[in-house]
Amino acid sequence: MKKLFAILWLLLFSFIIQAQDIEVYPTHWWVGMKWSTVQLMIRGKNIAESVPMVKMRPEGMALAPGVRLKQIDHAENKNYVFFDIEIDATAKPGWITLPFVGKKGVKYELKPRREGNGTLYAMGVTSEDLIYLIMPDRFSNGDESNDRIPGMLDQSLRRDTVFNRHGGDLKGIQNHLDYLYDLGVTTLWLNPVIENDMPERTEHGYAFTNHYRIERRIGGEKAYKELINALHAKGMKIIQDAVYNHVGTEHFLFKDQPDSSWFHRWPKFTQTSYKDQVLFDPYASQVDKKLMSDGWFVTSMPDWNHDNEMVQKFLIQHAIWTVEEFGVDGWRVDTYAYNDLHFMNRCNQALYDEFPNLTIFGETWVHGVINQSYFCANNFAIDFKSNLQATTDFQTLFYGIQPALTEPFGWTEGVNKLYTTLAQDFVYKNPMRQVIFLDNHDLPRFYSVLNEDTAKYKAAFAWLLTTRGIPQMYYGSEVLMTGTTHPNDGYVRQDFPGGWQGDPANKFTEAGRTKKENDVFHYIRKLANFRKSSSAIKTGKLMQYVPYEGIYVYFRYDDHQTVMCVMNTNDQPKILSLDRFSERLQFFTKARDVVTDQIVSLTDPLQIPRYTTLVMELQ
Amino acid sequence: MKKLFAILWLLLFSFIIQAQDIEVYPTHWWVGMKWSTVQLMIRGKNIAESVPMVKMRPEGMALAPGVRLKQIDHAENKNYVFFDIEIDATAKPGWITLPFVGKKGVKYELKPRREGNGTLYAMGVTSEDLIYLIMPDRFSNGDESNDRIPGMLDQSLRRDTVFNRHGGDLKGIQNHLDYLYDLGVTTLWLNPVIENDMPERTEHGYAFTNHYRIERRIGGEKAYKELINALHAKGMKIIQDAVYNHVGTEHFLFKDQPDSSWFHRWPKFTQTSYKDQVLFDPYASQVDKKLMSDGWFVTSMPDWNHDNEMVQKFLIQHAIWTVEEFGVDGWRVDTYAYNDLHFMNRCNQALYDEFPNLTIFGETWVHGVINQSYFCANNFAIDFKSNLQATTDFQTLFYGIQPALTEPFGWTEGVNKLYTTLAQDFVYKNPMRQVIFLDNHDLPRFYSVLNEDTAKYKAAFAWLLTTRGIPQMYYGSEVLMTGTTHPNDGYVRQDFPGGWQGDPANKFTEAGRTKKENDVFHYIRKLANFRKSSSAIKTGKLMQYVPYEGIYVYFRYDDHQTVMCVMNTNDQPKILSLDRFSERLQFFTKARDVVTDQIVSLTDPLQIPRYTTLVMELQ
Repeated sequence: MKKLFAILWLLLFSFIIQAQDIEVYPTHWWVGMKWSTVQLMIRGKNIAESVPMVKMRPEGMALAPGVRLKQIDHAENKNYVFFDIEIDATAKPGWITLPFVGKKGVKYELKPRREGNGTLYAMGVTSEDLIYLIMPDRFSNGDESNDRIPGMLDQSLRRDTVFNRHGGDLKGIQNHLDYLYDLGVTTLWLNPVIENDMPERTEHGYAFTNHYRIERRIGGEKAYKELINALHAKGMKIIQDAVYNHVGTEHFLFKDQPDSSWFHRWPKFTQTSYKDQVLFDPYASQVDKKLMSDGWFVTSMPDWNHDNEMVQKFLIQHAIWTVEEFGVDGWRVDTYAYNDLHFMNRCNQALYDEFPNLTIFGETWVHGVINQSYFCANNFAIDFKSNLQATTDFQTLFYGIQPALTEPFGWTEGVNKLYTTLAQDFVYKNPMRQVIFLDNHDLPRFYSVLNEDTAKYKAAFAWLLTTRGIPQMYYGSEVLMTGTTHPNDGYVRQDFPGGWQGDPANKFTEAGRTKKENDVFHYIRKLANFRKSSSAIKTGKLMQYVPYEGIYVYFRYDDHQTVMCVMNTNDQPKILSLDRFSERLQFFTKARDVVTDQIVSLTDPLQIPRYTTLVMELQ
Repeated sequence: MKKLFAILWLLLFSFIIQAQDIEVYPTHWWVGMKWSTVQLMIRGKNIAESVPMVKMRPEGMALAPGVRLKQIDHAENKNYVFFDIEIDATAKPGWITLPFVGKKGVKYELKPRREGNGTLYAMGVTSEDLIYLIMPDRFSNGDESNDRIPGMLDQSLRRDTVFNRHGGDLKGIQNHLDYLYDLGVTTLWLNPVIENDMPERTEHGYAFTNHYRIERRIGGEKAYKELINALHAKGMKIIQDAVYNHVGTEHFLFKDQPDSSWFHRWPKFTQTSYKDQVLFDPYASQVDKKLMSDGWFVTSMPDWNHDNEMVQKFLIQHAIWTVEEFGVDGWRVDTYAYNDLHFMNRCNQALYDEFPNLTIFGETWVHGVINQSYFCANNFAIDFKSNLQATTDFQTLFYGIQPALTEPFGWTEGVNKLYTTLAQDFVYKNPMRQVIFLDNHDLPRFYSVLNEDTAKYKAAFAWLLTTRGIPQMYYGSEVLMTGTTHPNDGYVRQDFPGGWQGDPANKFTEAGRTKKENDVFHYIRKLANFRKSSSAIKTGKLMQYVPYEGIYVYFRYDDHQTVMCVMNTNDQPKILSLDRFSERLQFFTKARDVVTDQIVSLTDPLQIPRYTTLVMELQ
């Protein structure tokens, strides 16, 4: 009787193995990649029971011409096996069969690489670009059919709350590419587009539940590919928001962990200290270092254990897979300092190897140029050397443009902070790669920070669009969207007015905007479009002068063009004698105000209205 | 008749040449120095007329065995000639004759080197020391006979004003060496002791008028040598305050300039911008760089032109001469950032070559760790590399202990600033050499900064005497001297009470101090003397923990000793659980409060009074 049961059970089990979906990650790979030994994660109920623990010979097992199975690994959890397959230069695109898995093995596709092979995509984002950051759920609803997806955990759809879904999607973004192109935007950065099948707070996208699925509520893989193709067709680019540090608690790899070493475990929920200092502090304790790196970001986001080689491979392969699969041009790494930094270097290097022009920058919400520069390529002769190209430059915001326009001028205050922060640029390998911004999805909208003073706001935007670095603006800034992080950050993530059918006003159109909104919109549009054809701003040098009396003067220049920028951070007009700037002015007699097209003589003192950044092309 | 006059005039002139003092600088030199080719500045009325413009042969002219005259230089000004003499290893001490000068030449002495040859002097000042900064005119009047010196320009002597002379002198300092030794001081740093024969503001000492004269109103060369010998006899050390950047307008070299290239000249008085940023700013203009480096510090202090090789030699030789002549142990360089930094490297190197143990640190009154570290040995891989050992660490004051005790605790505020500033130490080659302080002759007295809160003041002193670096205190801090820089910096340079005969109270004595003063005096004395025998503090490592709730915990430790310091920056007592610190506490069960000698159990939570830094030796 027992024997009979056992036989029946085995038969049933073998049937289940056949019938169920077996998942393989990466879902496919390509021939001709530099990352040519791929670790496949094969997942299915008790799948390990069908796979022998074969010790492979060094040469492995041939699966197809040029393709060899080199190693099989089991995990504690029988739902996983790992196959290392090597794809050499002779391999051809096509389907291979992964042996042992189930009765007949599992089919796996090796694709030919994308057209362009890193020239028509993975193009990189540079100081020639203007980045526009969009939270996909909050920009425009282009496809109401995907607002709720049956079977997903969060079925909310309430635009009158900040933390429920609003229905924005990739199609909605694609519908407004002409608007963005006209504004002067060259590049989109979207908050993460990967599936967040979480019970709540799914609007921000930072709690992945399956790396290999684009969020279906914003349109899934199809809409993402369509958007990117449409962008590339217009000569525009896309930056993907990558998250290596954590996943959502509903991620299959957290709910069904291969073993106990995939995530950082704590006796009870333990949050990171958010103290980046411990990573470079020569005096830091081990307990503080561990808390910073291994503590969880929030309760809903388990923290990967980057010491685990399988975790590393899973994440690196997903990164490469994503760039090749969708053709993204830039890679923004979330919560950079919270990751294992040696692992980050490995991730970055794998992407650089595969896509030499890809731009990678990390989020460094830290305080201080030293702190920030530690995390990217810098000029410190110290043991740890980051290979990250640049960061989100919180320093030119916190200790730069924000105090310049909100603090009284002083020896170390006001615009002197902006001046000093830029003077400290010598610590970076390439400050021109820093991504500069006035606000983003985590910060109060800058128009609110400036108490809705449009003069200050325009002065800030003029700076953003003319100083060193890669400027990034946040959706809706051009139409004076407001919001602060009090009572919570939802209030800086409100809907773009006009993005939804039936919205009372459509700010995407001239007619839908107020006079004040149009004034600012056209100001930004004018400078953003000037920027597009300005070699001095795009690739030229910067020269800045010591500020006096709250007036900060800087130049962008190259052999072809000189642009003079004068920022008056006073609440009153000022007159500026130009003698001091002869080093840059000597070959010019007049200047064209880029915004008004007025011609200004350089032989007379300059008049600068209150809170204004004049941008002038010298003639 | 004309001819007769001419002859008479020539006779008279020749008599004057003979009769007048011919000055030679350096006033003497030594055999056996590494700086063995000395450029002698020979000065006398029209002296160049007697010296032929001889083009020397490569081997020069023998003046004595091992001593050769290698080159003669004239200047535009006939009152100067310059002789380069080479003193090789075979030269013997004795007098040589410098030829051509006047009728019979001028005698010049080559001395044997000081006893000890850089072991009994030029000993260096390290983190094992405690520096006590004194303004000689304001500490104690030990010799009333030198209060006014006939013939000197400033004949003021008014203790009821801040900018006139008060009569303090080196003898007054020497009289109190027992007091200082007992307090725990190991090293004196005096504001400059070199002659300031200026019409006013001669109290501070930074306007030299003759490099080769010790100020006679503080006792001259004799008193300086006696003081240093007395210090060395007690195992104590001396730091001299060096000024390479400028002189006083009454300096003979300014009043009677060798040529027009010795000082920076401007069409009208032009002050430095005091903006150190331009020196490292990759975007700085030439005009801003020039203004910073070549602008004058104040109207009364002409700015040396360090591009002039003769100026360089004059200053370097004076530095070497001073250390050898007086036997000083440390060298503090005034207004470091305002000097030509390449010249500073040359000066420092010349001193290191001659006196390998000499400590050199520069004044860097700048804002930011990046700014400060640029001027000393750092870990930046950039073109300009400073060889300065360390700086006066304004950063641990401005962004450290001061906000820790005056600002509410916050994410980047209060004691978090102190914590972060120290975490940034990785940019320095050797942060342990930084000279740390609470105040000095230019800053408000820290007791006044803290609104005379003795609890906070003791917390600050406990930090000063236990953290990394070389602690420096300012005279009178131990007896609660007060003063701010408003209305002017004279108010932080008041007399030490009891330093003058007839002072109403003598704070040098227990009986002369109030109860509160004695409380603070004994607190500092206890910690300073504990420090003297604490290997952990003197040479051990530092470990610091992320501050929480305004409590900052750090350890000093080595293989022999562990000292735990707990700073409560709250206005209320706190209880601290010690679990988090097991990395350092694990081998100990109790601790001795170094100040009270009370034994504290490490198994219980720790009680910390309001504004207190507990210093505990673990047992």
